Amino acid sequence: METLLKEQMNFLIEIDKLKTIERKTKIMHGSRLENDAEHSWHLAMMALILQNNANNKIDLLKVIKMILIHDLVEIDAGDTFAYDSIGQVDKYDREVQAAKRLFGMLPAEQAKELMDLWIEFENKETEEAKFASSLDRLQPLIHNHNNNGDTWQKYNITSEQVFKRNKEIANGSNELWEYAQSIINNSVEQGILSQ
Amino acid sequence: METLLKEQMNFLIEIDKLKTIERKTKIMHGSRLENDAEHSWHLAMMALILQNNANNKIDLLKVIKMILIHDLVEIDAGDTFAYDSIGQVDKYDREVQAAKRLFGMLPAEQAKELMDLWIEFENKETEEAKFASSLDRLQPLIHNHNNNGDTWQKYNITSEQVFKRNKEIANGSNELWEYAQSIINNSVEQGILSQ
Repeated sequence: METLLKEQMNFLIEIDKLKTIERKTKIMHGSRLENDAEHSWHLAMMALILQNNANNKIDLLKVIKMILIHDLVEIDAGDTFAYDSIGQVDKYDREVQAAKRLFGMLPAEQAKELMDLWIEFENKETEEAKFASSLDRLQPLIHNHNNNGDTWQKYNITSEQVFKRNKEIANGSNELWEYAQSIINNSVEQGILSQ
Repeated sequence: METLLKEQMNFLIEIDKLKTIERKTKIMHGSRLENDAEHSWHLAMMALILQNNANNKIDLLKVIKMILIHDLVEIDAGDTFAYDSIGQVDKYDREVQAAKRLFGMLPAEQAKELMDLWIEFENKETEEAKFASSLDRLQPLIHNHNNNGDTWQKYNITSEQVFKRNKEIANGSNELWEYAQSIINNSVEQGILSQ
């Protein structure tokens, strides 16, 4: 087999591990935790369905590429909980190391493309990165709203923390931030998220 | 909330069920069965990484869209095992009903786009559908090759059946069919797939 294809296949086998990285959020139709691979699929579907809600024109393929790869670094670095202020401190350094190892398994040109896409996603400056990031914030809100606030209650998260963390959804989509606020408020009204 | 966004959100919540639809293949780095959502993510990554192996020029975004939605019908119709000749008989009818219900949850224009994409994938006539379908065949082969032939042994599948079912990988990619044959042959040599 030619070297190029061998490298690509080794990478595709390695990233199967994403299916074993658990998040803090449960799936909506079941009682187990969601994993990063199915989370990434769900975000890609959100990008496809909600693309017209982006604040500005976006390149949909680029958004989806970013989404597909955005959590691969967690294969080495693990999932750092959004409200874990200690884990957040060295998160980026751990994830950069992971990105180098994982994308480095690919032929040089592809390794560079994926590394560039991942850095672009992390920097949240381009329209595509802002929109992808908005979906990444919105998705667990929808899960918790449909899961009786499971994660919020387990970790004693307040609506103030949820508003603070998620207001940047507006950077990618004002409409989706409006929607997010409506489900946060509704969660407080329902008593599944503390004031 | 405007009706459009409400319909889209209801659809995005409904398709979370894809995470509960189990396939016959185990994940490679773990001992549980793979579900359709993570399978779809893995295929989308394969499309991104292996796009240059397609026999002819493809529209990558279209391939990825097809892959993201190709198994949604299994939310209603369930996963029909590739080697289940009885289940295969009414598979298409069951899946068409499912497609109508699920895509029908979306605003008309999007419902039509997704239905058209799904039918295109099923018909395997366009370059995009042929390539997406090749990846869909190749992925469980890679899993079984890395899982000591788990599914093959559990269901007494022979290499003749595996060759017969998967030779259409060549319709989307001759290079990937060559690779597939090498891992089928290697599986027989290793004794994890019976002659």
